Amino acid sequence: MAKPKVFEKPTGVKDYLPLALTKLRRIELDVLECMRRWGYEQIMTPTIEYYDTVGVASATSDQKLFKLLDQRGNTIVLRSDMTAPIARVAGSLLRDEPLPLRLSYHANVFRAFEEEAGREAEFYQTGVELIGDPTPEADAEVIALAIASLKASGVPAFQIAIGHVGFLNGLFEETLPGRTEEQEALKDCLLQRDHVGYRDILGKLSLDDVWQRELEGILRLRGGDEVCRQALELSANTGAQAAIRHLCEVWDVLAAYGVQEHVLIDLTMIGDFSYYTGMTFEGYASQLGFPVCSGGRYDNLLAQFGRPAPATGFALKTTRILEVVDRTAAHSGRTLIVYELSERQQALEEAERRRVIGETVVTETLLNAGTEQLAVVRQAAKDGVFMYRGKEYDNLVVMAAGQEESA
Amino acid sequence: MAKPKVFEKPTGVKDYLPLALTKLRRIELDVLECMRRWGYEQIMTPTIEYYDTVGVASATSDQKLFKLLDQRGNTIVLRSDMTAPIARVAGSLLRDEPLPLRLSYHANVFRAFEEEAGREAEFYQTGVELIGDPTPEADAEVIALAIASLKASGVPAFQIAIGHVGFLNGLFEETLPGRTEEQEALKDCLLQRDHVGYRDILGKLSLDDVWQRELEGILRLRGGDEVCRQALELSANTGAQAAIRHLCEVWDVLAAYGVQEHVLIDLTMIGDFSYYTGMTFEGYASQLGFPVCSGGRYDNLLAQFGRPAPATGFALKTTRILEVVDRTAAHSGRTLIVYELSERQQALEEAERRRVIGETVVTETLLNAGTEQLAVVRQAAKDGVFMYRGKEYDNLVVMAAGQEESA
Repeated sequence: MAKPKVFEKPTGVKDYLPLALTKLRRIELDVLECMRRWGYEQIMTPTIEYYDTVGVASATSDQKLFKLLDQRGNTIVLRSDMTAPIARVAGSLLRDEPLPLRLSYHANVFRAFEEEAGREAEFYQTGVELIGDPTPEADAEVIALAIASLKASGVPAFQIAIGHVGFLNGLFEETLPGRTEEQEALKDCLLQRDHVGYRDILGKLSLDDVWQRELEGILRLRGGDEVCRQALELSANTGAQAAIRHLCEVWDVLAAYGVQEHVLIDLTMIGDFSYYTGMTFEGYASQLGFPVCSGGRYDNLLAQFGRPAPATGFALKTTRILEVVDRTAAHSGRTLIVYELSERQQALEEAERRRVIGETVVTETLLNAGTEQLAVVRQAAKDGVFMYRGKEYDNLVVMAAGQEESA
Repeated sequence: MAKPKVFEKPTGVKDYLPLALTKLRRIELDVLECMRRWGYEQIMTPTIEYYDTVGVASATSDQKLFKLLDQRGNTIVLRSDMTAPIARVAGSLLRDEPLPLRLSYHANVFRAFEEEAGREAEFYQTGVELIGDPTPEADAEVIALAIASLKASGVPAFQIAIGHVGFLNGLFEETLPGRTEEQEALKDCLLQRDHVGYRDILGKLSLDDVWQRELEGILRLRGGDEVCRQALELSANTGAQAAIRHLCEVWDVLAAYGVQEHVLIDLTMIGDFSYYTGMTFEGYASQLGFPVCSGGRYDNLLAQFGRPAPATGFALKTTRILEVVDRTAAHSGRTLIVYELSERQQALEEAERRRVIGETVVTETLLNAGTEQLAVVRQAAKDGVFMYRGKEYDNLVVMAAGQEESA
């Protein structure tokens, strides 16, 4: 096996140069500020966790976890999401805090082997968890906050698709009782949004005509609250009916938030996290084929950390949002001060005066500049923005003995 | 081996609850803003790097690196500092950017086995690298920026000790030529600040009286620029003399910055990073026994990434600074809106109006509140700040049919 070349980094990870990073951090801070206004408080957990606790509880499949051994022989994982670690904290350090807990985070998470599909092995998420509230109001709150967060991040156009794992589970239990393997195959097609494959499998099941039509019908269950009414007629299964009624209530609260234009009910939607127990949702930006956020209700996870409690939340896929947001940072004025050694103190004091009021100031001695180059720069600076040693500046200040000159 | 308990995390790593994290992020943002004003641009690199590239180039000893294997059999490390990764970027993605490069970062870094000494296995650093400038001006710039950054972080009182690896190397080469083992033993004592141990070793070396006095004398070489003059007389070694002259020039520039009150020359100082080649420094806060920042010149590192260039920089130990900064976040007003279901839309609109102007607003239905609890809260809210479900609020808005009431 060849050694990696000196400039190589592991596949699937990225360097963020100043331009991209400024944008990423602007998104991060704007979204966290939005979450703060909704009463969510920021929390941070370690990059590494025990495999036997958080690793096992996380929704990431085993072979996608980054694993290492510590010196005591424990298996350590790089966190693959923030939901399981936050559940751990809710069950330990925050055990005595009354519910509900409203927590937010911005963090990098890790997925091994993702690079093979050209996807990232390390990426950023910005999200919230609302722990301790089982109501449709809580589900609607996190969806409305996801919408507010996507707006704050600068995503120009997006739509949130809402589903409920209870509806599909109930429907499949009614139509394919006990046939777990076939249920899973159908769910897998829905997860991949492979409707052709779904119909293929359906055709081979030799089902009763009514069930056949019913299971085909759900592919058309996308739209506003009329979808809920249609779905109520579709399945008599108790679980499916309860799921739909919950979704209808979530829809009503979202209507009160005035955000229906961004929301779509999609009963074929299956969250890709195994711990979801109720409502799930995904957000799509118009220019991207993959979700920019995903979330849902997970009422069983907290019990794994000794504090049974209902919970709901979401994560923005911040690194992906970077690709659709067309937002360059406001250019703050950059000043170059070039000085002769005799004027050093005056030059550094001038730099300090300008930095105190927020200006970006770089100082260089005239030795570094060279007189010839200085003449060129002086000329360029007369016309406004100019380049010096590869960097753009707006203002030039030359401080030489007996003269101070600004352009 | 017992499995870890569900709430356990690996030793040496931390959860940051909202109060501590708010403070940590305030420090991070204030310091990065300070660095921005000095013309430094933020950069971010991956958490994982190849052992054979960045791992080997980093100054962290091998057994302190967190290592894991990727699926191709390459050894991966969790980054132990940001200097080596940034050198990699300077030699690759930024290869065509003219020098000097002024780069800043805030990042978590990892040290395995540190937990045994009760130290952290994951902690935060905020720092800069100035790549491509060999002058004393560049060294003084990063020291002055370290001082400005410590001020921006809110550290109430601190001092920067400056040394030069060339002085001690030259002096030891002069007095103990070729006796590498003894040189290392003496340096190790200085690194540990173990003056007793240093004198012990010295006593056993049976050196010439002059050399003996000389090597003992450096323990007293702490102070202002008079130390430089004394040191020039101490050793005739060319390397030592050049080192001292460089430090004198750095001191002069620092005087022009007007920051001498924070600076002390300490010729016994050895940076704890093996890649330092020139000036090194450490910052001490008055209440802490360990450094809050460290830095120095490393002129050989960039060549390892195919782009030979002089460089200098520093890192604030942000997690430690957290312990000395007494700065609670400005309390922004928190509002609780409790509403009857019939008033939901009005309540959510009121929440939105307040969030738009920056207020923190939590909404709850009256169902959750219960009328009895509501009466208690109403009473408490009359006197200003009140608690509701474990959280502190400043304003209470109750929206029930036919009435809107604020406290």
